[in-house]
Order: sequence, then structure tokens, then C-alpha cells
Amino acid sequence: MLTVDDKNYICSLDYAMSIIKGKWKSVIICHLNRSSTRFLELQRQLPGVSQKVLTENLKELEADKIIKKIVFPEVPPRVEYELTETGYKLFEIITLLETWGKEYIKEFKINNSPN
Amino acid sequence: MLTVDDKNYICSLDYAMSIIKGKWKSVIICHLNRSSTRFLELQRQLPGVSQKVLTENLKELEADKIIKKIVFPEVPPRVEYELTETGYKLFEIITLLETWGKEYIKEFKINNSPN
Repeated sequence: MLTVDDKNYICSLDYAMSIIKGKWKSVIICHLNRSSTRFLELQRQLPGVSQKVLTENLKELEADKIIKKIVFPEVPPRVEYELTETGYKLFEIITLLETWGKEYIKEFKINNSPN
Repeated sequence: MLTVDDKNYICSLDYAMSIIKGKWKSVIICHLNRSSTRFLELQRQLPGVSQKVLTENLKELEADKIIKKIVFPEVPPRVEYELTETGYKLFEIITLLETWGKEYIKEFKINNSPN
């Protein structure tokens, strides 16, 4: 067992999964990839996410040091989100998972469909 | 958007995450790795998992073709669980996530602890 911030985890994998758990975090990380992105652009790329939910998820990812928020000193201020270094390493793993998902759907869900 | 088995997903990553979501699935996959494992051995390696929860998770992973159940024609019958080929590809990605988790904890949780 592993204790981090007074919470127990089975192992470091369990802890890593806790950072990306939920419907939106892994997909947000995936969409941020190489470039910094503005809130509205991100919201546009994530059909179905509400402003409130996206704001919460971004805050948590920022607190977990997966992303960083960049505020440009303009009027009105421009805000963009970008992956940190550790966030980018996570992004690379998540893209492997995305590819695995594509191959799985092709193999088991499309090629095997009855009609 | 993506529809699989009449359910909507944001993308193939969202679908892949749905296969490993929850507290135990990724950890079960991680523990099965190269060798087939008996139920009780698996339960022993997963502190805190109940027989009912482990049985449910194994059933779902089997239905999703991530693992396969091998029944040896002995008296009483011996049952073991093993990763399928697609399950093994997922295992390889999950071990990267586990390593990422170890490095993250080392960098942000241990080296930065106040005392």
C-alpha cells in the first residue's frame, strides 16, 4: 500500500490513475498536446463539457502540476493552458492508450459487427 | 463523438479509459502480466479487494476480451486468468503509467515534502 497526501493507494499505478480518473481529464490532456490552448478553444474541442466542469478539471490538473496556466498581460487578459513537462510525459502514455482504443474498436467492435 | 454498443464516447481514448476505469481493473491487469494466475493468488496480491468485487471485475475484463479464463479439467477444477493478446498490449501501456506514477511521486511528493 502507498500513502500520498494522507490518502491510501494500492500502488503507484492506482495513484497515477487517480490523477487522470473521470470523464474529462485524460481527454483534456490529449487535446492540449503540444500547443497552449485557450479555454474557449478547449471547450469547443470537448463536446458536452460545461464551463463549470471544464474549469474544475483544469484547476485540479493545474494543482496536480499536469498543466500550467499562462496569463498574458493584455486587456482583457488572455489565458492559455499548456502541459507541464510531467504532463507531457503523461500525454505520451495517453496517446498510446488512445491508439490502443482505436485498434480495439476496429478489431472487436467494427470487424465483428453482425451486419 | 463515437458510439460503441449504443453508448456515446468523446473519442477512442474515452472508450479505452472506460475499459480500465474503476479502482481495480488497471491494477488487476498489471498483476496478471506474463503469467496466468489463480483467483486466490490474485486476491492475495490485491489488498482490500473483496471476493465479490474481484469476481465482478474479472467477469467484465473477460467480457471485454482483456483477459481469458482457463479451466483445467481437474477435480476440483483449477481456474486461472491470463491476459489476452490485446490485454497484453494494454498491460504494456499500463506499466508505463505505473512508472510515470512512481516518478511523479518521487518528484512532487517525496522530494518536496516539508520535513
